[in-house]
Amino acid sequence: MNLLVVRYIIGWILKFEAAFLLIPAGVGLCYKEYHYSAIYIGVAILSFLTGCIFQIRKKDRDLGELYVREGFASVALSWLALSIFGGLPFVITGEIPNFVDALFETVSGFTTTGASILSDVEALSKTSLFWRSFTHWIGGMGIFVFIMAILPMVGSHSMNLMRAESPGPSVGKFVPKLKNSNMLLYLIYIGVTIICAISFYLSGMNIFETLTMTFGTVGTGGFGIYNDSVASFTPLQQNLITTFMILSGINYSVYFCIVTLNFKEILSFEEVKCYLLIVFGSIALIAWNIRHLYGGFGETVRHSAFQVGSIITTSGFSTVDFDMWPQLSRNIIIILMIIGGCAGSTAGGIKVSRVIILLKSIGKEIRSIVHPERVRKLYLDKRPLSDETLRSTNGYAAIYFVVLIASVLLIAVDEFDFTTNFTGVLATLNNIGPGLGLVGPAHNFGIYSNFSKCIFIFDMLAGRLELFPILILLMPSCWKKY
Amino acid sequence: MNLLVVRYIIGWILKFEAAFLLIPAGVGLCYKEYHYSAIYIGVAILSFLTGCIFQIRKKDRDLGELYVREGFASVALSWLALSIFGGLPFVITGEIPNFVDALFETVSGFTTTGASILSDVEALSKTSLFWRSFTHWIGGMGIFVFIMAILPMVGSHSMNLMRAESPGPSVGKFVPKLKNSNMLLYLIYIGVTIICAISFYLSGMNIFETLTMTFGTVGTGGFGIYNDSVASFTPLQQNLITTFMILSGINYSVYFCIVTLNFKEILSFEEVKCYLLIVFGSIALIAWNIRHLYGGFGETVRHSAFQVGSIITTSGFSTVDFDMWPQLSRNIIIILMIIGGCAGSTAGGIKVSRVIILLKSIGKEIRSIVHPERVRKLYLDKRPLSDETLRSTNGYAAIYFVVLIASVLLIAVDEFDFTTNFTGVLATLNNIGPGLGLVGPAHNFGIYSNFSKCIFIFDMLAGRLELFPILILLMPSCWKKY
Repeated sequence: MNLLVVRYIIGWILKFEAAFLLIPAGVGLCYKEYHYSAIYIGVAILSFLTGCIFQIRKKDRDLGELYVREGFASVALSWLALSIFGGLPFVITGEIPNFVDALFETVSGFTTTGASILSDVEALSKTSLFWRSFTHWIGGMGIFVFIMAILPMVGSHSMNLMRAESPGPSVGKFVPKLKNSNMLLYLIYIGVTIICAISFYLSGMNIFETLTMTFGTVGTGGFGIYNDSVASFTPLQQNLITTFMILSGINYSVYFCIVTLNFKEILSFEEVKCYLLIVFGSIALIAWNIRHLYGGFGETVRHSAFQVGSIITTSGFSTVDFDMWPQLSRNIIIILMIIGGCAGSTAGGIKVSRVIILLKSIGKEIRSIVHPERVRKLYLDKRPLSDETLRSTNGYAAIYFVVLIASVLLIAVDEFDFTTNFTGVLATLNNIGPGLGLVGPAHNFGIYSNFSKCIFIFDMLAGRLELFPILILLMPSCWKKY
Repeated sequence: MNLLVVRYIIGWILKFEAAFLLIPAGVGLCYKEYHYSAIYIGVAILSFLTGCIFQIRKKDRDLGELYVREGFASVALSWLALSIFGGLPFVITGEIPNFVDALFETVSGFTTTGASILSDVEALSKTSLFWRSFTHWIGGMGIFVFIMAILPMVGSHSMNLMRAESPGPSVGKFVPKLKNSNMLLYLIYIGVTIICAISFYLSGMNIFETLTMTFGTVGTGGFGIYNDSVASFTPLQQNLITTFMILSGINYSVYFCIVTLNFKEILSFEEVKCYLLIVFGSIALIAWNIRHLYGGFGETVRHSAFQVGSIITTSGFSTVDFDMWPQLSRNIIIILMIIGGCAGSTAGGIKVSRVIILLKSIGKEIRSIVHPERVRKLYLDKRPLSDETLRSTNGYAAIYFVVLIASVLLIAVDEFDFTTNFTGVLATLNNIGPGLGLVGPAHNFGIYSNFSKCIFIFDMLAGRLELFPILILLMPSCWKKY
């Protein structure tokens, strides 16, 4: 591996993180938390200097090429570096004294998981609460999408960075001019954020609530600022959050088409239709299943819609403890956890398009027994699916289940029950947040040992970066010089 | 579909079942259970007559060809017919009055699952206890292997019946002369059965125990004849059962090689080496994990080995309630449940060879990112794996997980906890028997509703016939005439 270019990219990431850290520092000043503000500024300086050190090289030395493996390794290591420096303020302020806990919390933030080890988030300073939610927003669209929108970076192969970070089976439809489309993508993201923030503010949230909840909703993160997550917000506010969560789980290509006035194209997104079908189907089914639990029709649908939106987009907010729901509803939630949102959205999970491709290839496999004489091609969005896409989607699913099973096995050392362990791994690997049982919405991940927390950290990163970037780091041959 | 040939094959199966049913009838006579004996003879006559009716056709009409779809559908429907007629005696004797329960019990027997809806098996007549265990032995090697060893059947395409029934990604190595090799395979099966029975008898079991336990062990079934499964047998007897279970989980190709004196070939079975590695690794790990639970080293290893052997070969006997073991051991057991035994053995599960192929293709996928320039071929047993095998193995795994998830969702209507439902589906889909929680070794499946039992029946058949034969029955286009 060409370590020089990897170092160089991580250096950039740390410099950007320094800039990001100044924002909560500013928030701290507004709320007169000068002590916290100073710590965030200190960490920002440290991050910037480390970034500079990472970028040191002999003047005449060329950076070299950024091949797939360097691209994947850079992205994985950058996310780790982001999380390590992002977690430092929690440790230094003493709000999360254990470094593994702080790393868990920050990885959970950047990967938009929203799982926490804190039992009392209200005890945090405003500065740290803001930073915690802001990491969701940074991680939501992806740090490299942001950086590549404004920097020329490392030449012709920077596509390999996008390949590693962007969610879904392919890099979407808007690739010809990468820099421009990244810029537009990020502008859309900012646009959605602003519309969401205005709606929240008009519904009666204060400024601080508006900002943090917007970051958590648009980034499909799930860190709340109150111990009861979103339960204490008004029904109107909850419905708004539901709406923006579900919108954030849609493939951003749709918004891209809207902005570029390409309305015809929108109707061809099979994935989005399927996503909306799953969302509304699940809301109806769960509402019917929990009809006896709440006051009236409106309340039942509100809770059902909120939890469905929160889980399928892998946000992880909650208005009620859905672990108390009947088993059918809990099972639907587990299945939504696995599916996740659309490719090219801020949501996690296996992604709706992958599920569609898997189901289609299963159908093909069965049909080929009934009609062995007919050869069929599979289509998605009216375009034929290549063997390459089919193979890699199948491979992805297989790796996903191996990581899932291995994680459940490893964290078994902590002796918690199977439901807790299984849904805990699902909740981190799919970047959701809460699971069921002892890691349900009313609980947190603080019960686990440091070892298990490290497994969860691995799962969160592997889930957000879609397995490969993290997994290749484990291969010795990846590190060989050439 | 050519229904005529399907009918014809089912007819043969029912005639054979009539012959099988006479055996417990004979046992009933020995134990002076004349009433039960008469019922089994009656059902045998009914089965024979139904078989004759199924085979009625116009004299001049040709049977037509047996293509893949007819082969698969015949096998699936034959297994269903076998189970329906096999379950009738339980209903008529009143020992299992509910027909769905009786069908569950018989499907569980033929598919060598060993899951039961009975809480008190000791209340059954000797006749029915014998029949229950005997179904394991019939289903273990497969009814079509047996029939095709002695009948010419339906001409050149009878291979399609083997393809549907035999476990594993390919039909094994001994295909050139199908009829002869089937004969030899069945003789080996009978040989193993006799050796097992002699060992059991010499260890002090009475004749009835010897026969029923042999059927359950060699067929890797798991129906016991006592309420405490195998706990009341002596340590020596338990160790013998362990040994024969583990031997029955090995690919029969190994025994084929031994019988044909082809010792060199044996060393090349990657799957068998891997299987033994998993078995002994799991025994060691669990023994270490449960070291504080039992008296001494010998007892600990005995219980560990018994449960590992019982679960990986998907037998389902138990000497202790392993649901009381620490979480690590329980998780290892869940993973063994999924893996299952070797292809071409009487065991169920995904099969060790499929797991090996999946892991190899995952390794290839990851390596192709690190070294995109190198194209690698995958090998199993030193022979290259075809793209076809890779694709169908991946497809198999995907379908497996879809059936798993769909089943867990459907049985959720009964409102049992997730661990019970999840391991219940695993235990039936992989033909194991007991799961954890409310379907653990100390409990049974009687708690579920008829609807859920039907799902389990579907899962057991789908698991034993490796998904496709059962799934194509659900496709309307499979039933179209041509």
